[in-house]
Amino acid sequence: MTQSTFGYLTPENAPLFTDLYELRMMQGHHNQGHNPTATFSLFTRSLPSNRGYMLTAGLEQVVHYVETLSFGDRAIEYLTELEFDEAFLEYLENFEFTGEIRALPEGTPVFATEPMLEVTAPIAEAQLLETAVINQIGFQTLIATKAARMRDVIDNEGDGQRLVDFGSRRAHGTDAGMKAARAAFVGGFDGTSNVAAGEAFGVPVSGTMAHSWVQSFEDERDSFETFVDEYGDDSVLLIDTYETVAGAETAAEVAESTGVTLRGVRLDSGDLVALSKAVDEVLPAVDAFISSGIDEYAIAEFLDRGGVAAGFGPGTALVTSTDSPKVEGVYKLVAVSRDGGFEPTMKLSPGKVTYPFSKSVCRREADSQFVGDVVGLREERSDLPGEELLETVVEDGARVVDLPDLETIQERANSLRRKLPPEHRAIEDPEPYEIRISDRLEAETDTLRRTLEARMLE
Amino acid sequence: MTQSTFGYLTPENAPLFTDLYELRMMQGHHNQGHNPTATFSLFTRSLPSNRGYMLTAGLEQVVHYVETLSFGDRAIEYLTELEFDEAFLEYLENFEFTGEIRALPEGTPVFATEPMLEVTAPIAEAQLLETAVINQIGFQTLIATKAARMRDVIDNEGDGQRLVDFGSRRAHGTDAGMKAARAAFVGGFDGTSNVAAGEAFGVPVSGTMAHSWVQSFEDERDSFETFVDEYGDDSVLLIDTYETVAGAETAAEVAESTGVTLRGVRLDSGDLVALSKAVDEVLPAVDAFISSGIDEYAIAEFLDRGGVAAGFGPGTALVTSTDSPKVEGVYKLVAVSRDGGFEPTMKLSPGKVTYPFSKSVCRREADSQFVGDVVGLREERSDLPGEELLETVVEDGARVVDLPDLETIQERANSLRRKLPPEHRAIEDPEPYEIRISDRLEAETDTLRRTLEARMLE
Repeated sequence: MTQSTFGYLTPENAPLFTDLYELRMMQGHHNQGHNPTATFSLFTRSLPSNRGYMLTAGLEQVVHYVETLSFGDRAIEYLTELEFDEAFLEYLENFEFTGEIRALPEGTPVFATEPMLEVTAPIAEAQLLETAVINQIGFQTLIATKAARMRDVIDNEGDGQRLVDFGSRRAHGTDAGMKAARAAFVGGFDGTSNVAAGEAFGVPVSGTMAHSWVQSFEDERDSFETFVDEYGDDSVLLIDTYETVAGAETAAEVAESTGVTLRGVRLDSGDLVALSKAVDEVLPAVDAFISSGIDEYAIAEFLDRGGVAAGFGPGTALVTSTDSPKVEGVYKLVAVSRDGGFEPTMKLSPGKVTYPFSKSVCRREADSQFVGDVVGLREERSDLPGEELLETVVEDGARVVDLPDLETIQERANSLRRKLPPEHRAIEDPEPYEIRISDRLEAETDTLRRTLEARMLE
Repeated sequence: MTQSTFGYLTPENAPLFTDLYELRMMQGHHNQGHNPTATFSLFTRSLPSNRGYMLTAGLEQVVHYVETLSFGDRAIEYLTELEFDEAFLEYLENFEFTGEIRALPEGTPVFATEPMLEVTAPIAEAQLLETAVINQIGFQTLIATKAARMRDVIDNEGDGQRLVDFGSRRAHGTDAGMKAARAAFVGGFDGTSNVAAGEAFGVPVSGTMAHSWVQSFEDERDSFETFVDEYGDDSVLLIDTYETVAGAETAAEVAESTGVTLRGVRLDSGDLVALSKAVDEVLPAVDAFISSGIDEYAIAEFLDRGGVAAGFGPGTALVTSTDSPKVEGVYKLVAVSRDGGFEPTMKLSPGKVTYPFSKSVCRREADSQFVGDVVGLREERSDLPGEELLETVVEDGARVVDLPDLETIQERANSLRRKLPPEHRAIEDPEPYEIRISDRLEAETDTLRRTLEARMLE
């Protein structure tokens, strides 16, 4: 059964991208005739550390996954090996998702406690989705957020510098490399170096040269001349292989002798602020791109200290969100059909209590700035102030909205992000944004908690 | 061109999983008739923070990638859109890797500076591999290392407790979820919850139940009875949904009334040490599995404080290696054919100087313990003390060794890891292991540096 895979997860094995317990619970629900309709809610209990907000991303992939989810021969064969029983495997062979999904559109600022997505379906179906949905929304939200923080710094202190994802090699596997490029674009990036992400998602791709290009020639000048011969005005030269300022001078001489207008130079080591200023003296009309150790903190310091750059290429820090590498999404059962009605549920586990009920999240705006959210019961939606953020995207198992293209998502994300007051977008010690729980949700939660506690004492 | 993908990277788009600059350099090498044979070396400049060693993993995926790498219609079509020229695209259509790969076998302890992999091939071919190779080796090495640290703690302080990867939902995308399960197994884990990883790699899968199972029933007892009715002796009950000790008592009563011997119980919240002891009083013959916030530090503390557990299910901390989420692999040109000979190369970029030359890594052993490594020139291999670690796995583009199966890799990894003296395997402030650079490599590096510096002054 061992099989090499580079990065393959195809429709044939995608339904197996789930935790075994999901399938075991599903079998229990099916075989025991206990398959009530359930609502699960995806949210986080806290923001990633040092974050004042998150920016949602990954919904398109979730919808695609749900739409294409089916158990073919390869999946069934493996589950047979795992000794799932025949009745259940027959159910899986005919499986399709029949439920409803409500979600925040991609590129929406979101905070702890707020549902990013809710699934309502027969519990066996809704349960199966847990692992894949948390995985896709969690990771892309993590990276869109990290990217947005870099764009925030440039909005505040920069001059519209370009941001290009250079991180694929350090991403956690190939899917992360692909999705980081997409999510970074949602967060306000201009492009990626990852060609596969360009092809799959339409993210603009860009690229310069590596040190190996320069080293493969007898000397730096040769390497520059050969590159310019190939690419002309579309040349970005990497000038720090041996000594940055000397590299800039060589680049200037090559441009002059060949009559080419360089598209740019790249700096990748040393004191980037001082070197960028020195390079700007040598090549005042040529754009400098800065890579190596770039994140929101490095960009802020670079700009504070007067560094000169037309763009930055963050890599590892972007795609791993190094300073805070996790969005701890949870997917919790909040309501279940019982005795003909729909009942709220919650757990009481210490530190992990959840608000029950299917919910609405409403956001208020004043003077084009967001001023606070309220989380309430879905059924009190019309009584809550502000605009409802959760949108129904799937009904009866089918997509009911046109998902926006990536450019539209980015424009919307930029606009919403900039409506969030700056104190919540600070890259260090951001002020908490106001999230209020509706009076009715608080009261109903208390009632349910007391009921459950009383039941434990019986 | 925008396209939803859940986790797909198939042979059709796999060759595009590279940075654009690799393809632009390739085009330059091809069109400019400058395609010398080159050696690239993959290594890290430092260990991830707080790590005394890394454990390699991911080679099987790299070999598979190299063996299957070809540019089909879909890839060529996109590269045409990107305006690569016809001559180069024709070259790509016939592309196959023709070079050599030497590498550390999976499950080898490795340290900074030491090559984990070397590629020798026409530079255009070797260059293309960079992004994918760093990505696959880097991520799996990161996770195998994190997993090995947990196994180290149990080796030292535990009682052979089982370790099962529960992290897929928090991994950075689907490929990370799959590969983390594989890499954790290399590092000494017993299994994973990820069904797709079980199918693809043969990692044993296991699973219990979620809180949603319990909550979906009127009360906890109902939920346990129904589960036991379905799974009998193969039942692991999650007992902390409402109150852990009460949950254990209910589990005991259900086991007694149904005559079932529970396979275990799972604890997922609260003071896990105190609760595990209390649960052990109630269910002395039943295995307890501990999840929630598990990493090597938590396991050490749990064991120190006398917690009672048969196994642990680390999730987020394992699959994101949260405390140190990156292996900063670099892939550097170290030698290139020139004027009929083979010349060493290096860059002088501040803080990023690399040792030139294709290399050997030799490891010495005394009393069944590793006592130090030496990194030298490949051609001085026979003069270096100890056993050569780099193995030729691909020659003339074809695999020349049988890659071991995952169980064999794990056995070897466990054995090698345990030969590393404990002070280098401490989970905090490990002592540095001795890595010596051979006299000849030091001397040749100095000579090359002086030559390059002199050339800059010309």
